[in-house]
Parts: sequence; structure tokens; C-alpha cells
Amino acid sequence: MDGEERVRIAIDAMGGDRAPEVVVQAAEEALKEIHAEFILVGHKERLKDLLKKYGLTQRVKVHHAEEVIEGEEQPTTAVKAKPCSSIVECVKLLKCREADALVSAGHTGAVMAAALLYLGKLKGVQRPAIVVRVPTKSGSCILLDVGANVDCRPLHLFQFALMGQAYARSMLHCPNPRVGILSIGEEKTKGNEVVLKAHSLLEKASINFVGNVEGRDIMDARVDVVVCDGFVGNVLLKFGEGFVQMIKGYLSEAFKENILRRCAGLLLKDILKDAMKKLDYTEYGGAPLLGVKGVCIICHGISSSKAIKNALKVAIEAKREKLIERIEESLKTRRWEMQAL
Amino acid sequence: MDGEERVRIAIDAMGGDRAPEVVVQAAEEALKEIHAEFILVGHKERLKDLLKKYGLTQRVKVHHAEEVIEGEEQPTTAVKAKPCSSIVECVKLLKCREADALVSAGHTGAVMAAALLYLGKLKGVQRPAIVVRVPTKSGSCILLDVGANVDCRPLHLFQFALMGQAYARSMLHCPNPRVGILSIGEEKTKGNEVVLKAHSLLEKASINFVGNVEGRDIMDARVDVVVCDGFVGNVLLKFGEGFVQMIKGYLSEAFKENILRRCAGLLLKDILKDAMKKLDYTEYGGAPLLGVKGVCIICHGISSSKAIKNALKVAIEAKREKLIERIEESLKTRRWEMQAL
Repeated sequence: MDGEERVRIAIDAMGGDRAPEVVVQAAEEALKEIHAEFILVGHKERLKDLLKKYGLTQRVKVHHAEEVIEGEEQPTTAVKAKPCSSIVECVKLLKCREADALVSAGHTGAVMAAALLYLGKLKGVQRPAIVVRVPTKSGSCILLDVGANVDCRPLHLFQFALMGQAYARSMLHCPNPRVGILSIGEEKTKGNEVVLKAHSLLEKASINFVGNVEGRDIMDARVDVVVCDGFVGNVLLKFGEGFVQMIKGYLSEAFKENILRRCAGLLLKDILKDAMKKLDYTEYGGAPLLGVKGVCIICHGISSSKAIKNALKVAIEAKREKLIERIEESLKTRRWEMQAL
Repeated sequence: MDGEERVRIAIDAMGGDRAPEVVVQAAEEALKEIHAEFILVGHKERLKDLLKKYGLTQRVKVHHAEEVIEGEEQPTTAVKAKPCSSIVECVKLLKCREADALVSAGHTGAVMAAALLYLGKLKGVQRPAIVVRVPTKSGSCILLDVGANVDCRPLHLFQFALMGQAYARSMLHCPNPRVGILSIGEEKTKGNEVVLKAHSLLEKASINFVGNVEGRDIMDARVDVVVCDGFVGNVLLKFGEGFVQMIKGYLSEAFKENILRRCAGLLLKDILKDAMKKLDYTEYGGAPLLGVKGVCIICHGISSSKAIKNALKVAIEAKREKLIERIEESLKTRRWEMQAL
């Protein structure tokens, strides 16, 4: 597909804490900025009035989905029990090539389970991984996995490095991404058992491996790709969110203290807004699920319309930059390396 | 020991990136605020002029230590090879009851190795843990382990919960601390293998266990004690440090942009200072090593004199609040619970 052709995105209209309205709103906002075809997947009746409200009736397609997978459901069970849910319908559209990508702010586990069940893994991939962009002093880097796999083996981390490298090349336009593994010290002797083993695999690989990175190095812009298991990545990601919220809280309290501070607060509004913007997950769009046969972008359940809009942009970019093909290629060329492990 | 008696602290004068000067300075600053007896452990000749400079010659004791353990040395080997190093000498002073507590900003692993070798673990403790205070919206909570153990078994996490509870009771004056285990979702089915097993042990324990906490909950003041393995805790702690540094960087850049912003920056200096103070590790003093027979407070290698001063305060508090005895008691009363595991 060339840059001119419209990317077709299946959007889970029922996914997320504020769905379907926030999703419809995101589609409307996105259409102002991007050239794409949206297929809103959800309950027709529930979407009708919203499409009118946002003037989208003629501008997007609707694909009916009778059911919704709820947050507390067990992913695999739910995906099997609800084949007509919005998440599964999105995946099926991808499977039968009626869509080029999917975006969902619904149940992350269910998106993953549905993608594995209907699309399957790319050849050679043992485990898919969720990747996020993390702000750094001078831009951003990527962190993976942030929740797809809680217990990883060294080979999984090795593959995350390869997939992350392919992602950074195609999506961050970084020709020779520096790849690091998250650990508790710079020395190669530092880390837990899995990290130590993964480190020695990565050392031998034909990638730009810079060794261990510590928690504080993530933001130092020393690396482009940070590899970790999904447990650590998820905890870290949510810790970062909590941190930003806490700082916002501190500052807004402080600004209320007296009139002088109130004025200064007004003067600084833009600065703080800029700073917070850099730390704001919504700016970075959704988190791609790497390693499955299709572009699947997962959004936070609390996503705003801006966050979903940015995820839609990521989906288009992933399709145009041939992200899936690049990951497949990267794993293929390293098959002999992996077989030797 | 009652509140009136002077706590005797062995201070590793040679530990930390800016030792010995920053340590001597910390001792001088601390003596203005606290009633304690300091034994500076380090090379006599190297300390002489500094003691003069800070007017401490008559006010602190010096205990000579011929050697220093360097940051890159393997902990156990170094402790055995350098029995006259400042770290080992501090531990020996504790062992022979010439000091009530030790404070070191030196090699964390070496402090731990020396403590294990010379002091030993408290009865029933399988692994010691390093605990830190973490700022929350409305105060602080504690997080452990942050680096003593990289690969933990469920029983280790269970014991960290007990030690954390004892710490929160004695040091945070929290009568019934809420204990949570760090995981990737609130539901008890979420987590990696070790966390899931530890969760089920903690559920059965006679503690105020509130279940899983996520990364973002740490700052929400929902719990008083957060338990995790030392790998995750260490990564998180350093990530937090990196975050604070990045925000400071953003803001100081932004303030320079124009004269109006410069003025606003001046007006807001105090606010930002306050906010950053809440996030500043130096405010929270050192990190106690729990589970060994003695009060051992570990400081960050980059500690300022203020950080070391605050660590000295923590050491005094730990001695006065009978932290070690409380941990011992807590494990003793739960011995039958643990034997049943």
C-alpha cells in the first residue's frame, strides 16, 4: 500500500471506560487531520445517535457487533464465548482483510487473546509483546513488553529486542537503534536470572546492543529500545502515570495558596502544560501489540478522545511503514541465531 | 535504651561518591540537630584535616579503617579480602556492641554481605530486604525490597510483608499498616507466578493485607507497605529518580525562555522546591536493611550531606523505636504460619 491509499482501520467503538462516545468523538477529530477509512465496530443502535451528533453518519462505516467483552472477564474464555463482541469482530475484519489495522481501548487481554486466536503469531515469534513510547530528555524511546507476558524466558526477551529494533527503525525512523535490557546495574553481572541469560544472548546477536540500562537511564536518552518482561514493564508504566498525576496534584494545590502564586501559575500555565504534555501518555497514542499477524493497537481503558486519535495515527503509520513485514523480516534473518540458542 | 541515652552510630566515612568530605559535613550538620555519638570510620590521616575544617576534632570519635571497598568489587569477595575496610569495620563495631547502628553510603552489596557475614540474619529470616520511603499524595509509604534480592520466592515476599509491617508500625507510627503486593492488576488472578503464590500466602496471614497494588497505586496513599522483589523495586526506585530529574530539567529549560517566564519562575521557586522536596530521595534519609541483627542504614552512593544527615536520623529512630526487636517479634509470632506454608 502506498502513502496515497487510504488505510482502513477497524475501531472498537465499545472499548474503554468512556465508550462509545469518546471513541466516536476521536474518529471525528481524527478525520480532520488524517486521510483514512474508519470502520466503527459496535452495537448499531447504540452508535446511531452518536454518529449523528458528531456528523459522522456518512463519513464512517459501521460494522455491527452484538456483544461487548467486559473488563473483568477472563480473556481467552471471553473471546471464545463472545465471537460477536466488538473486539473479536475487529480482529475478524483484519483477518479477512476488510481492515488494515485495528484500534481498541477495550480489554487488553481480550484483544491479545483474539489476535492470537484469529490472526496468529508471526513465524518464529514465541510471545507477542506490547510496546509503548516513553518520554526522554531529548525525545522518546520505546519500552517493551509492558504487559503481554508476565513470566518471560531469556529467549522471549531476546525476541522482544528484535521486535523493538524493527519498531524503532520503522516507526521512530531510527536507522540503528540502540537496544538495552532493563536491569539493576550497568555491569553485565547485575540482574535477575532471566535478565542475565538474556543479556548473554543479546551480546552475541547482530544488533546494536548497549547492555544493561537502569531505571533512571530510560529517560536519559541513552537507548532507543528498552527490553523487559511484561510484569516489570507494566508496573513501571503505571508507576510513571501515578507520578505525573501526583506532580500535577502538588502543583495545582500550590498555585491556589495565595494571589501572587495564582498569578505566577497563570504565567506558567503554558510551560507546565508543555512539560506535562511530554509526560502524557495520550500524546503517544496507543500501544502496538507486536508479534501477531496484523496491526493491533491497544489503548488505555481511560483513553481520552485525543489518546484514541493519536492511536489511530499510530495505526496508519504502522501500516504505511510496513511494521509487520519488518518484524517478520527481522525474525527471519535471525532465525539461525535463535536456533543456535 | 531510653530516649535520653545517646545512640552511638558508626558512620562509614569513606562510603559514597563524594566521601569522605560529604560524610564529615553531614556529621557536622547532624550534630546541630540531634543528640548522638558519632564514630567516623575511615582512614585517620585522610580524615584529620576534614575534622579540623568542620570543627569536629573534639566532637566525634574516629575509628581507623585502613581500606576502602570500591563500587565495582564483588561484594562477598571484597568483604572477605578487606576485613579492615571502612564498611567491615563499621559492621564489626556493631557486632561488638561499640555502636548501636551503622550508616554507609558505600557499596550496598558489600554492606549487605558484611552484615550477613558478621551480624547474621534474625531468627527465621530467609532473606534480608532493603526498604525505602516513597512519597504519596498525602504522605509516604514504604516499598521493599529495593535491591537486596533479585530472584525471590513467594515465602521471601511473605517475609518482606511481615518486616515491612513491623517497620511501618515502629518507624511510621502506623498502628495497623495496610500491606499490598505490587502487581499488574487489582484482581488476585493478576500477576506473575511468584506474586500469585505470595498473594495466596498473604491472604491467609494475620496481617492487614489489602491485596494487589498497581504501579500507580503506590502514590495514591492506598497502602502503607508495598511488597515486591528486589529487581522490580530497584528498577522502580531508579525510574522515579530519573523522572524527577527529567521534570526538573524540563522546567529549568522552560524558565529560561523569556523574561516573563523568568520572573514567574522566581515567584514559583518555593512551590517547585516544595514539590521537588516531596519527591526528593534525600529527604527520606537512608534505606534500612531489614532482617539482619543490627541497625544498618544504607545510603545512595550519590548522597549529599543532607541525605546522610537524614539517614543518621533514621538510624537513631530505628534504635529508639526498637525496630530490630519488633521485626524479630513479628517473625517469631508468625513462625507457625510460615511453618505451615
